[in-house]
Amino acid sequence: MFVHETKIRVRYGETDQMGYLYYGYYALYYEQGRGDAMRSLGFTYKELEEQGTIMPVASMHCEYLRPAHYDDLITVKTILKELPDGHFTTFHSELYNEAGKLINRGSVTLAFFDPLAKRKTKLPEVLRNVLAPYFKNEP
Amino acid sequence: MFVHETKIRVRYGETDQMGYLYYGYYALYYEQGRGDAMRSLGFTYKELEEQGTIMPVASMHCEYLRPAHYDDLITVKTILKELPDGHFTTFHSELYNEAGKLINRGSVTLAFFDPLAKRKTKLPEVLRNVLAPYFKNEP
Amino acid sequence: MFVHETKIRVRYGETDQMGYLYYGYYALYYEQGRGDAMRSLGFTYKELEEQGTIMPVASMHCEYLRPAHYDDLITVKTILKELPDGHFTTFHSELYNEAGKLINRGSVTLAFFDPLAKRKTKLPEVLRNVLAPYFKNEP
Amino acid sequence: MFVHETKIRVRYGETDQMGYLYYGYYALYYEQGRGDAMRSLGFTYKELEEQGTIMPVASMHCEYLRPAHYDDLITVKTILKELPDGHFTTFHSELYNEAGKLINRGSVTLAFFDPLAKRKTKLPEVLRNVLAPYFKNEP
Repeated sequence: MFVHETKIRVRYGETDQMGYLYYGYYALYYEQGRGDAMRSLGFTYKELEEQGTIMPVASMHCEYLRPAHYDDLITVKTILKELPDGHFTTFHSELYNEAGKLINRGSVTLAFFDPLAKRKTKLPEVLRNVLAPYFKNEP
Repeated sequence: MFVHETKIRVRYGETDQMGYLYYGYYALYYEQGRGDAMRSLGFTYKELEEQGTIMPVASMHCEYLRPAHYDDLITVKTILKELPDGHFTTFHSELYNEAGKLINRGSVTLAFFDPLAKRKTKLPEVLRNVLAPYFKNEP
Repeated sequence: MFVHETKIRVRYGETDQMGYLYYGYYALYYEQGRGDAMRSLGFTYKELEEQGTIMPVASMHCEYLRPAHYDDLITVKTILKELPDGHFTTFHSELYNEAGKLINRGSVTLAFFDPLAKRKTKLPEVLRNVLAPYFKNEP
Repeated sequence: MFVHETKIRVRYGETDQMGYLYYGYYALYYEQGRGDAMRSLGFTYKELEEQGTIMPVASMHCEYLRPAHYDDLITVKTILKELPDGHFTTFHSELYNEAGKLINRGSVTLAFFDPLAKRKTKLPEVLRNVLAPYFKNEP
């Protein structure tokens, strides 16, 4: 299992008139969590795209347990439970507020896609190499 | 069953560098679809809030079947399959491109909440009255 | 002078906890106004890009005179005061609420740019032809 | 003069199909810069609102000098040139890319407003006290 944490402060423009972080903008937090998780492995999503693999989103699921408010410092935990093996991979996200309470839980499934060949592809070797050590003692 | 259709054109600022409508912004399309659906019943979500009921989102599920692009005119179909009976209600959304292809499917579950009393509530009577006729021949 | 009007309803996700349309999102309204203005001429910004001209923004100025609120139906008036002659063009935007009050005034200056040649360019001929009639009696 | 720096990484959802940080989203970077600047003084904008002063935006000016791209780590320099004296105050923002190049320059003028009394107000005393030392040797 691979787990990474990043912190994001809620912007004013991301709140709505209910005074909550708007439900649609959590997707940006999940994305930033995934990006920072990859960066911590020494390989960025930006480089992945430059080397010819894009990762469009196939599905997303979100549960909103407690509201987030303006200026809250949210901890975004990004979890990869399995070494990606096929055309898709799923990242899990857990968001915690400053009191340590779980406020939101989500999962995003992304495809590996080659935009030039216009066909699904798999986890690039360079990314597999840095991820594999996190999964080597797993069945 | 209550079904309503609205049309939304994809803004440039809603695309990402992949050239697709960004996956997080579909939530805004679902929201606009729900808002326009309610307005067609002669009662707006704005009035609902003014009368003391807010509807925070409890969960969302999205499936991204085909990309949407800048300037595409998307048809957002908003579907309410059941007359809300408890503290929650679920709206289903189907998005179609100009060729009539289904590009995205989602569902959003919202709570009825009284922000002054700080407790869950139910579908307000005024909204039940305008919705009921759409469900009267259903078991 | 070329003037075009379009209508945009304020989304919930575009409001902030002040209960106002967030100041950053007016840029999306200006953009939609410009896009609809071009479409009314029979030529879309999308086609312009496909034919090799992109229009990155060089500067923007906004004045916020009155707030806009959730569900307000805003009239966006897009004004082109001069037929673009150099590498840049300026669109003016005026936003009115349902009471007809001016709530916001802005201007956006965009460049004509050829991304393949990586150099500034000018108003494409196809667009000049459809715009010229609006300016022919002007000095 | 009061100057503060904060760093913001460009999100994928903030880019557009041109591959640039969308021109409308710079306002969110300016906002985060202002918020972090205030926090560095030991007093947050959130507390300001809780104590009864909101700061709606009156005007904004932006100059886009160079594009920002996905994953760029932008340095946002927030500058207050004068101790606010009337109903308005202006924050200046300068954005630099990782090569140290100025990519964007903006200014945002905000009002001090009391939402209960519904009238303009002035810089609250608590904020004046922490800001004053930065301006004491100035004419």
